[in-house]
Amino acid sequence: MKNSVQPAEGKLGILIPGLGAVATTLIAGVVAVNKGLAEPIGALTQMGNIRIGKRTENNYPKIKDFVPLAHLKDIVFGGWDVYSDNVYEAAVHAKVLEKDLLNNVKEELEAIVPMTAAFDKDYAKNLDGEHVKTGTRLELAQQLMADIENFKAQHGLDRVVLLWCGSTEIYFEESDVHQTLEKFEAGLAADDKLISPSMLYAYAALKLGVPFANGAPNLTVDIPAMVELSKLTETPIAGKDFKTGQTLMKTILAPGLAARSLGVKGWFSTNILGNRDGWVLDDPDNFKTKEVSKLSVLEEIFQPELNPELYGELYHKVRINYYPPHGDNKESWDNIDIFGWLGYQMQIKINFLCRDSILAAPVGLDLALFSDLAKRAGMSGIQEWLSFYLKSPQAAPGLRPEHDIFKQLMKLQNTLRHMMGEDLITHLGLDYYQDLVESL
Amino acid sequence: MKNSVQPAEGKLGILIPGLGAVATTLIAGVVAVNKGLAEPIGALTQMGNIRIGKRTENNYPKIKDFVPLAHLKDIVFGGWDVYSDNVYEAAVHAKVLEKDLLNNVKEELEAIVPMTAAFDKDYAKNLDGEHVKTGTRLELAQQLMADIENFKAQHGLDRVVLLWCGSTEIYFEESDVHQTLEKFEAGLAADDKLISPSMLYAYAALKLGVPFANGAPNLTVDIPAMVELSKLTETPIAGKDFKTGQTLMKTILAPGLAARSLGVKGWFSTNILGNRDGWVLDDPDNFKTKEVSKLSVLEEIFQPELNPELYGELYHKVRINYYPPHGDNKESWDNIDIFGWLGYQMQIKINFLCRDSILAAPVGLDLALFSDLAKRAGMSGIQEWLSFYLKSPQAAPGLRPEHDIFKQLMKLQNTLRHMMGEDLITHLGLDYYQDLVESL
Amino acid sequence: MKNSVQPAEGKLGILIPGLGAVATTLIAGVVAVNKGLAEPIGALTQMGNIRIGKRTENNYPKIKDFVPLAHLKDIVFGGWDVYSDNVYEAAVHAKVLEKDLLNNVKEELEAIVPMTAAFDKDYAKNLDGEHVKTGTRLELAQQLMADIENFKAQHGLDRVVLLWCGSTEIYFEESDVHQTLEKFEAGLAADDKLISPSMLYAYAALKLGVPFANGAPNLTVDIPAMVELSKLTETPIAGKDFKTGQTLMKTILAPGLAARSLGVKGWFSTNILGNRDGWVLDDPDNFKTKEVSKLSVLEEIFQPELNPELYGELYHKVRINYYPPHGDNKESWDNIDIFGWLGYQMQIKINFLCRDSILAAPVGLDLALFSDLAKRAGMSGIQEWLSFYLKSPQAAPGLRPEHDIFKQLMKLQNTLRHMMGEDLITHLGLDYYQDLVESL
Amino acid sequence: MKNSVQPAEGKLGILIPGLGAVATTLIAGVVAVNKGLAEPIGALTQMGNIRIGKRTENNYPKIKDFVPLAHLKDIVFGGWDVYSDNVYEAAVHAKVLEKDLLNNVKEELEAIVPMTAAFDKDYAKNLDGEHVKTGTRLELAQQLMADIENFKAQHGLDRVVLLWCGSTEIYFEESDVHQTLEKFEAGLAADDKLISPSMLYAYAALKLGVPFANGAPNLTVDIPAMVELSKLTETPIAGKDFKTGQTLMKTILAPGLAARSLGVKGWFSTNILGNRDGWVLDDPDNFKTKEVSKLSVLEEIFQPELNPELYGELYHKVRINYYPPHGDNKESWDNIDIFGWLGYQMQIKINFLCRDSILAAPVGLDLALFSDLAKRAGMSGIQEWLSFYLKSPQAAPGLRPEHDIFKQLMKLQNTLRHMMGEDLITHLGLDYYQDLVESL
Repeated sequence: MKNSVQPAEGKLGILIPGLGAVATTLIAGVVAVNKGLAEPIGALTQMGNIRIGKRTENNYPKIKDFVPLAHLKDIVFGGWDVYSDNVYEAAVHAKVLEKDLLNNVKEELEAIVPMTAAFDKDYAKNLDGEHVKTGTRLELAQQLMADIENFKAQHGLDRVVLLWCGSTEIYFEESDVHQTLEKFEAGLAADDKLISPSMLYAYAALKLGVPFANGAPNLTVDIPAMVELSKLTETPIAGKDFKTGQTLMKTILAPGLAARSLGVKGWFSTNILGNRDGWVLDDPDNFKTKEVSKLSVLEEIFQPELNPELYGELYHKVRINYYPPHGDNKESWDNIDIFGWLGYQMQIKINFLCRDSILAAPVGLDLALFSDLAKRAGMSGIQEWLSFYLKSPQAAPGLRPEHDIFKQLMKLQNTLRHMMGEDLITHLGLDYYQDLVESL
Repeated sequence: MKNSVQPAEGKLGILIPGLGAVATTLIAGVVAVNKGLAEPIGALTQMGNIRIGKRTENNYPKIKDFVPLAHLKDIVFGGWDVYSDNVYEAAVHAKVLEKDLLNNVKEELEAIVPMTAAFDKDYAKNLDGEHVKTGTRLELAQQLMADIENFKAQHGLDRVVLLWCGSTEIYFEESDVHQTLEKFEAGLAADDKLISPSMLYAYAALKLGVPFANGAPNLTVDIPAMVELSKLTETPIAGKDFKTGQTLMKTILAPGLAARSLGVKGWFSTNILGNRDGWVLDDPDNFKTKEVSKLSVLEEIFQPELNPELYGELYHKVRINYYPPHGDNKESWDNIDIFGWLGYQMQIKINFLCRDSILAAPVGLDLALFSDLAKRAGMSGIQEWLSFYLKSPQAAPGLRPEHDIFKQLMKLQNTLRHMMGEDLITHLGLDYYQDLVESL
Repeated sequence: MKNSVQPAEGKLGILIPGLGAVATTLIAGVVAVNKGLAEPIGALTQMGNIRIGKRTENNYPKIKDFVPLAHLKDIVFGGWDVYSDNVYEAAVHAKVLEKDLLNNVKEELEAIVPMTAAFDKDYAKNLDGEHVKTGTRLELAQQLMADIENFKAQHGLDRVVLLWCGSTEIYFEESDVHQTLEKFEAGLAADDKLISPSMLYAYAALKLGVPFANGAPNLTVDIPAMVELSKLTETPIAGKDFKTGQTLMKTILAPGLAARSLGVKGWFSTNILGNRDGWVLDDPDNFKTKEVSKLSVLEEIFQPELNPELYGELYHKVRINYYPPHGDNKESWDNIDIFGWLGYQMQIKINFLCRDSILAAPVGLDLALFSDLAKRAGMSGIQEWLSFYLKSPQAAPGLRPEHDIFKQLMKLQNTLRHMMGEDLITHLGLDYYQDLVESL
Repeated sequence: MKNSVQPAEGKLGILIPGLGAVATTLIAGVVAVNKGLAEPIGALTQMGNIRIGKRTENNYPKIKDFVPLAHLKDIVFGGWDVYSDNVYEAAVHAKVLEKDLLNNVKEELEAIVPMTAAFDKDYAKNLDGEHVKTGTRLELAQQLMADIENFKAQHGLDRVVLLWCGSTEIYFEESDVHQTLEKFEAGLAADDKLISPSMLYAYAALKLGVPFANGAPNLTVDIPAMVELSKLTETPIAGKDFKTGQTLMKTILAPGLAARSLGVKGWFSTNILGNRDGWVLDDPDNFKTKEVSKLSVLEEIFQPELNPELYGELYHKVRINYYPPHGDNKESWDNIDIFGWLGYQMQIKINFLCRDSILAAPVGLDLALFSDLAKRAGMSGIQEWLSFYLKSPQAAPGLRPEHDIFKQLMKLQNTLRHMMGEDLITHLGLDYYQDLVESL
């Protein structure tokens, strides 16, 4: 197969619903990188290498030199928020980045002013924004489409992607209105309460052929109506929930234990954090939603139905505690009770002193750039190869989502190789031992 | 390709030089498993599954049902030691397994009495064994070959493998006598001091076409003469140093950090253990050998030459401390200083309360069974697909050894699939999203 | 003052309401110690020394040689429980001690059979015992008094103490019936629901002049009516809640930070445990009671009203999580955010892998033996010098309870010295530097 | 006794040999506090309270309001160093305090320029200073005395104290020249190599009646000649080695374990730090000196000779590792193996993310201010009540040093009470329970 990916010419707009801690850290960072003040650490699209060909060829180009990604200098940021603070003000408020750094990018950040948001207080009771649009759901979606097109025209953009960085919406499940595009559009016209604000953004984007990636655990593009629309307009979608912190560690460590057939009897995970996210999740009802999502990770990796002796009794508990002294510096502590040969028990304790938005920002950047790449590669619908970045990755109906970060990485890298017409890598490597190959 | 692996008929002898803590834990465990008293947790050959075909086929057979491995009931253990204790006595002395369990397998363990060892005190100054052979190096090698053949005849064995579980020998580097089989055999005849005891065992085994796996960091089969011999007699070799404990954790976690392009500024690893291994390694000279081996792991995984901004400044320090209160319960503590987006720093602390021999025993079992499988599959020389189990995996000249445990696992699993004529897995998976494939 | 403590002649009965994990660990331990099978580690009365006189005299007798305590061989155990299991059966069920040890004391433990309990399901909804007494509260109290006197006569005891090791009762506050002895006795006669089962045991004991110590956080002897009765019958009382595990560590560490005027901004404490206690406390309502008690510790030690700059903003959070994989092996993890010179921040993390009943048993023993000593020393009412052992120590009206374990230890030791007519110790020590003293 | 302490009138000079990380952090901090920019957290003299009288009196004055201490505004700093950097430059170089803070006190710090140091490279091989005095030992001592008197005159000071914050000198033991003042002075005249530079400073200070406190583990004032001189000139001395970090934690926790008669089987302490101190101590020879001092702490607290069953087998190991990624942010990890009732084992792990100079600076301030107070109170020679601040406290011949931080605190507080004519506190407190007292 030959590479038929369109080049990344012109400017790329990244439009973000929710200009809070993660979004402002991302935007300030890209500006700082473009000014040579800092490095985009944590972004595979900027720092990562990919092996091409045999090991003996020693060919490990940067990913950004291997596939045609948009350059950071060609990105224009914009977004919507229920508060009217510009990005500089919002970044100062978020207390993630140091004053020194923010002062160096103040002018650029002040220039980014949010558009009014499509909002419904019933989906986020703890928010009180007044910087909002009015109208029925259909009208709101139309206003959002107009926002996107105006932004594109105003900045002379070639392409746009949408990256949801807004708050977690309340928990609810799919219903009839979400099953087909036709029903969904009827719902919009009828101002159906079961259509959430995040769905309005997704609908507006997909309708215009603009890729959409979802950084929160909301039900948004993971409904049949959206998958249908994404195929119709040939647009990539990716969801959901940025994979950072404790869950990132879990999807690194659990595959390692499973690789060695070590049993796991218990996994206790606790978190302390003091930002708004922590405050919201300290409430048992809100936490329940997050808990459901977080708990599934281990089950998918360990597959207890295949290994009941090893994982059948696994007791998994996740706790999140609001703890103001730590601010955005989320800290996790895990105790893992494992057992080995003949059932003898061992313990692993992991204490991760992390920073929430610092881990999330490059994930957001990669999702935006790879979604844009996918669009130019003619890929549409669910992008399973982006599971690497997501806590609850979306998969085709009938497929178990893949949580093992190393399988996710293989998938991502082989997809890039496939896209560019290079040989896939299997790590078989028997060819380096020629006589062996002959003997087989 | 069609599967042409010979079936595992008849009995398999596992002969072990060094019947200490690891070997006795392995032997007692296999007996206990055969009696239905315990489970062989941690052994991929016994507990592991392998995916065959597409995900939608949902076909995950046990590895032992997929490839023709020797059954545990067909294994006969034997070995050599510088002490004359039988395996029951040695197991009691090692204090790894509980009395209750050992009493249940006492009869079987007492029946396994070590043969006299080939020994040279200059290679292990802290050992004083008197249960040893006498003669020149050539005579010792001949006696070992006779031991192997007698053991095989006496127990009616079909096949044999050798698994080195003896002590770490002193540090030394390759010299001329190790370069070709001819020079090596001349050295044997000349009783050349540069040929270590472990090399005598390896030579005896390979000469007879018996696979050899090396659980210690000694220079043994990783010399050109042995590679040459292994090809000549069509015998698999695997080395070296069982991957357990802190290094196991390191080769799980480091690939996870690298996957996300997170920078690492420092990695401090300390260990406390109170068994004989700890006592030996508390000496700065002995530790130096181990240190060299342990330090390379991170460099191979992070490839600082490709990612100087992320790993160029990595300060890696490994310490091992003799601490009698812990006995065989090795405990490690790691502090890892990482940095993410824009260089912001985070920390990870890992405290692993592990058990040395419990982690090593199933690794020894798997190496023995897979080496026997490789022999029957007609594979000879270096078995890179067994790197998964080894701290310092041997690779073809000109190839970097692979330390990333997830690439090692892919290599192992795809080798098994390849051996059995099944499709390799790449995790690409675009075929599940048919329209995507068409669009590419 | 001269020592006027009565000698510890004859036998001492220790009667325990609640023969569960703590009580059976205590009883089995004393039997094992008497048989020379183990040591009574953790019991100050058995292992502790006390300095007498000047440091230069080098006189540090064992406490048991300094004050006239009952000998372990003179103790006879008995008790009540809502289940009819004998102490051996209950100990096996509790899974704290190893089978080997229990088998060695089986005969003695089997001989201890609980008397029927005074019980009211409304005070412990999770218990379903049927081994209970019937009657009004007054009748129950009278039956308990008869139990005590029968037990004393039957075993030829000289003295008896009661040690509450039963479950935590539901939370409730003092009301009118608890204010005076007269009202309390009227309440008994009227079968007043506000009198809890534990109060019936305390009343029966105190009425007979038998000391009572409370190992649970129940409202029991810390009501005015009981204090009045204890003075009337010249009987010592001590309450409440055995100080073990995380709270023990907290009352060790917090005084150390306060000693150095180090500020504390946050203290997050989490616990995982899998015994019945953990299961009960996993319920938010039950946990609330425990939480109130646990949170007060830091406030009393740091006295934020005196040091608002250091402790005024302290955010203290305590969590208990039911985690079955750990059984009775309670584990705690604390994160403490401190600040020093100029407000610079530091962190302390403490991970305590403890055993609940192993820490509690010797505390129970000491409380019983010291209560008996106090009785013989003519001390009655609240024994503040026993605060050392208690999470919520009882103090005279108008006095803040003392939580600092080192002040509690000074109080305990100086009380013993005072009791025996020895000089109190102030650690002034200027007399060792004679010229200094003259100069002052 | 009536208070006869002289008031703290006029100005106090604090002269510091060694203007490195600790000294500059102390000086910058006092300036910042005087400007209202920060708080002197960690300094008992500034933040601490002391209870006076009975608990019911609720009288807890600040220590600085209870005893007549010099005010921070009356302090003038000066010092000596082998480098000529002023205090601002040295503080920037030390990387302890943030730039923002240093900029706010730049002018004051730049004004403090070191005097030339008395130096002998043989006592500190890793230092290469050229800002040094020349002459015989006697001449150097005379020059230091002149420095002190000139500094006093120049700044119109009422009183001066010397606080050693210089490097650790090489290890050596007392010899004949250190035994009496006469021999010492003969040694000075003979330029005896066995007299170390720090002794020259101490001699100069004491000769002038200026108190001397030693923050390093050097042999300095803890020789008979210096004790003799301090009594002769009625001058207080205090030594040695600021108690901070891991040792501080150890002297908090160990007394807590001992208080409860819990056994300790092992205590493993490791440290990672990246400042110059860490680099020096990474050398096995230099570390040996530090190790000896650090190891004694536990022995003195646990007194294994009194409690062989509890502490007779204690295996104590201390490691210091140079780890540049952490800079001045020293981090310690301790594993403590304890055992309780019947010998059952438990573990405590402590991870302290501390800051070396932040903990040391207020200790230096307190030692200086309390030494000045002692001088005005007419106290001379060894100040055992200042053991609270020292890792290796000096005690009268024949007395064991007191390492338990809580006994040290009692000693300090009761000394202050004694000095001011207040009742000592014993924590007996039986008087609050009047009837009890009568009964005794």
